[in-house]
Amino acid sequence: MCQNSISQVLLTLLILCGLLQCDSRPHSYDSKPLSEISKEVSKYSDIAHQIINLAVYGKAQNRSDERLAEFTDTIGNRVSGSKNLDLNVHLELVKIPHWVRGEESAVMLLPRNHTLAILGLGSSVGTPPGGIEAEAMVVESFEELKKRASEAKGKIVVYNQPFVSYGETVTYRASGASEAAKVGAVASLHPHTGWQWYQPGVAQIPTACITVEDAQMMARMACRGQRIVVRLTMRDQTLPDVDSYNTLAEITGSEHPEQVVLLSGHLDSWDMGQGAMDDGGGVTISWEALSLIRDLGLRPKRTLRTVLWSAEEPGGVGAAQYFQQHKANISNFNLVMESDLGTFSPLGLQFTGSDEARAIMKEVMKLLATINVTSLEEHGEGTDVNSVHYVFFPGASLHTADQRYFWFHHSDSDTMSVQNPEEMNLCSTVWAVVAYVVTDLDGMLTR
Amino acid sequence: MCQNSISQVLLTLLILCGLLQCDSRPHSYDSKPLSEISKEVSKYSDIAHQIINLAVYGKAQNRSDERLAEFTDTIGNRVSGSKNLDLNVHLELVKIPHWVRGEESAVMLLPRNHTLAILGLGSSVGTPPGGIEAEAMVVESFEELKKRASEAKGKIVVYNQPFVSYGETVTYRASGASEAAKVGAVASLHPHTGWQWYQPGVAQIPTACITVEDAQMMARMACRGQRIVVRLTMRDQTLPDVDSYNTLAEITGSEHPEQVVLLSGHLDSWDMGQGAMDDGGGVTISWEALSLIRDLGLRPKRTLRTVLWSAEEPGGVGAAQYFQQHKANISNFNLVMESDLGTFSPLGLQFTGSDEARAIMKEVMKLLATINVTSLEEHGEGTDVNSVHYVFFPGASLHTADQRYFWFHHSDSDTMSVQNPEEMNLCSTVWAVVAYVVTDLDGMLTR
Repeated sequence: MCQNSISQVLLTLLILCGLLQCDSRPHSYDSKPLSEISKEVSKYSDIAHQIINLAVYGKAQNRSDERLAEFTDTIGNRVSGSKNLDLNVHLELVKIPHWVRGEESAVMLLPRNHTLAILGLGSSVGTPPGGIEAEAMVVESFEELKKRASEAKGKIVVYNQPFVSYGETVTYRASGASEAAKVGAVASLHPHTGWQWYQPGVAQIPTACITVEDAQMMARMACRGQRIVVRLTMRDQTLPDVDSYNTLAEITGSEHPEQVVLLSGHLDSWDMGQGAMDDGGGVTISWEALSLIRDLGLRPKRTLRTVLWSAEEPGGVGAAQYFQQHKANISNFNLVMESDLGTFSPLGLQFTGSDEARAIMKEVMKLLATINVTSLEEHGEGTDVNSVHYVFFPGASLHTADQRYFWFHHSDSDTMSVQNPEEMNLCSTVWAVVAYVVTDLDGMLTR
Repeated sequence: MCQNSISQVLLTLLILCGLLQCDSRPHSYDSKPLSEISKEVSKYSDIAHQIINLAVYGKAQNRSDERLAEFTDTIGNRVSGSKNLDLNVHLELVKIPHWVRGEESAVMLLPRNHTLAILGLGSSVGTPPGGIEAEAMVVESFEELKKRASEAKGKIVVYNQPFVSYGETVTYRASGASEAAKVGAVASLHPHTGWQWYQPGVAQIPTACITVEDAQMMARMACRGQRIVVRLTMRDQTLPDVDSYNTLAEITGSEHPEQVVLLSGHLDSWDMGQGAMDDGGGVTISWEALSLIRDLGLRPKRTLRTVLWSAEEPGGVGAAQYFQQHKANISNFNLVMESDLGTFSPLGLQFTGSDEARAIMKEVMKLLATINVTSLEEHGEGTDVNSVHYVFFPGASLHTADQRYFWFHHSDSDTMSVQNPEEMNLCSTVWAVVAYVVTDLDGMLTR
C-alpha cells in the first residue's frame, strides 16, 4: 500500500546514473543469418521469465504504479517552464519555451447569456485587457472556412469539427488560429486543447479550447439562424525561454558502453490534471524497466539509458535538443524506445526500422508469449522521437489498449484514477524485456 | 435540422392543455379473463404501428431530440428556485425550496498546495466568510467513520467510498454530512453531487462534492501517513421557499375523463450542464408522446395527462404536492408513468402493480415487438412518484441502456451531446404506445 518517500525514489534514480562514454565503432548484424539470431534470442527466455516473475508476480509487483502515484501526488502536473518540471534529477541542459496561462474567460452574450468553459491553447497570445467581443462564425472544417472566407472578417471562428483521429483532428488545434487569421478572424475556438503553432507571416490571434458540448450547441444555434456573440478574455503570455533538463539514468554497457539503447517518456505534462497518463506512465515504466534489470543484477553488453524528456508538449523540444547534443554518437544509437500513448494493457510493440532489424525484433517479442504480448507492428516513431530525423536509428513505441486515451488527454481527469497497477506491471515487463535483450544481443540492429 | 421556435413549441403545449374533470367511479378489469383482454389489446396493433411509423420513420422522426435541443440551448439548466425553471407553461402551483449556490472553493494546503474542484451539495449551509481550515480525515465507509469516531472531532471528513450502485452509494451524498457531524466533524467532502438532507437534531455542517481523483489522492496521502489540511469556503445559503409550478398538458378522455393515465418527467434539473439527460429527455418524450397521439387524431377513452414535475432534485417536492392536491381523485389514477433515468436505447418497461395488472401490461408490451422492446420488468417506481405512497396506483418507469448515466449525472457534461435522436425516437414510441393503449382499454388496471 504505502511505499518509499519520493526522495528515496529520486535517490534510486541518482544511483542509477552513470557516465556516457563514446568510442570505437558499432558491431552490426548485417551479415549474421536469422536462424542464428533466433537461436541467440531464444537463450534469453530464462531472463525474460525472471523479469516477468519479478514485475508481474514478484516483489516489484505494482511498484511502477506506486511510484507514479507518489510522483503525481507529490509534484502534480509539470507544464514546461514551471518549477514543478524541475523538481527532478537534472542532467542535461535544454532551453524550453515558457508560456504562462493567465486569467481566461469566455461568455456567450447572444442568443443567451452562457459561460463557456475555455482553456487557452499553449503559445496563444492574450486578448486586450478588456477582451474581444465579436460575432461567432461556426464551421465544421477548414474547407467550409475557405468557402465562407468572405464572412470571417472580424469574427471569432468556432470550429465544430468531428473527431476523426488524433492525427487528422489535431490539425485544427495546431493551425486553427492561423487558418482563421488568414481570412480575417480575430480569434478562434475549437474543442481540443494542448499546444498550437502560429504560421510565420500570419497575424497571431488568441485561440482557446471550448467543450464539445458548447461547440455543438453553437452549431445548432447558427443552424437556426441565431446570431451568436461571444466575449473572449485571455491574459496569457509568452516569457523568454528558460533552462530545463532532460533527465537521464543508465546502466552502462559492459562491452560496448558507447552503444546505446534508449528508453524514454516525457517528464513534462500539460497543465491540467496530474499528467499521470500523459506521460507519467511512460516515464515510470521507462524508469521501472531499469530498476527491474538492476534488481536482477543484470548488466547488458551495451548501455541501457532511460531519458525522461523535457518539454514534449511544446513539440518535442527536449528530445530535439538531446539528439542535437548527441549527434556525434548517433551512429551508436541501436534502438530508441518511447512510451507516450498511455500505459494501458500492452497489445504489442510498434517498430520502425529495416526489414532485417524487424526480423530480429520479431524474435525478441516471442520472449513475451507468456504474457501474450508478441505482436510487432508498424510505426515506431514516438511523438518525441519523430521530432528528429528518424532515419538515423530504429525506433519502437509501446502500443497499449488506448481507446480511452482521449477521454482524459490534456484534461483535469488525467490523474491516477486512469491508471491500473496490473496494466503497468505488464507495460514495465514488455519495456524491460525488449530493452534488455536488444541491449545485450551480440550485434547492433541492422540500419 | 433547424426547427420551430421555442415559442411555437410552448404554444403547442398550451393548445394541448385541457381541464381536469372528476366524477363517477372507475370501471376495472377485476372480473374479465386474460384471454379476452389479450384479444382486446391485440386490436391496437394497427395503432401501435402507426405510432411507430410516425415516430421512428415518419415526419415526427427526431422531433423529440430537436425539441430537447432547442429547449436546453434556449433555457439551459433549470435548478429549483431559479428563474429558468419558470420559463415554462404554468399550471399547478407548488411551493419549492430555494437554495442558492454561492462562491465555493477548497484548497489543500498540506501536504502540498492543490486546488480542489468542489461543488456544494444542495441544501448545504455555508462556511464562515473566512472559510474553515481543518485537517482532513479520509474514510472509506460509514463503518470506518464509526470505528474511528474518536479521531473525527474538528476534522473535515473525506469519504472515499467506492461506487457500488446509485441506491447504495447515494446514501453518502444524502446523509454524509449528518453522519460526520454526529462524530464532531466540522465539514464533509465526498465524490458525488446533488441534494443532501440534514438529519433532525444533528448539527448542520457544510458539505461539498469533490472529484473521485482528489478523494483517492487524499486516501493515498493518508495511507502514507501524510497530514492533509484543507481550507473550505462556501457562501451557499437557503432562502425562503418560492412558488413554482407543475406543468400539465393532457388529452381529455372521451368516455371517462376523470380516469387518468399520467406520463411524467421532471422539468427542473441540477445546476450543472444543461439537464438534457436529467431529465430533459424524460420531459421531452412525455410531451412527444402526447404530440404523436394528437398527430394521429387519436382520442383515448380516459384522460392522458403529461405532468412535468417541478423540484424533483430536492426530493420529489413537486410530485409530492401534486398527489397531495389530487388525493381526492387518486382512485381514478389508472397508471403513473415516469422517465427519469435517461432516454438511451429503450430496453423495456419497469412496472409495479398487481399480478392482474402485470398480466395486462405484458400484453400491451407485445405491441412493441417490431422495435424489440417487449420486456416488462420489476420496480416501476420513478424517483418522483415513489415519493408518494405507491400502493395507491400502478406505476411504470422507462428502462433504457443507462450504463453511461452516471458518467454525466449532475455534471457539466449533462448536455445534448449525451442524447441520440434515434434513441429518443424509440423512447417516445414506447411511451406513446403504452400510454395510449392503457388509456384507451375498456377497463382500468386492477389494483
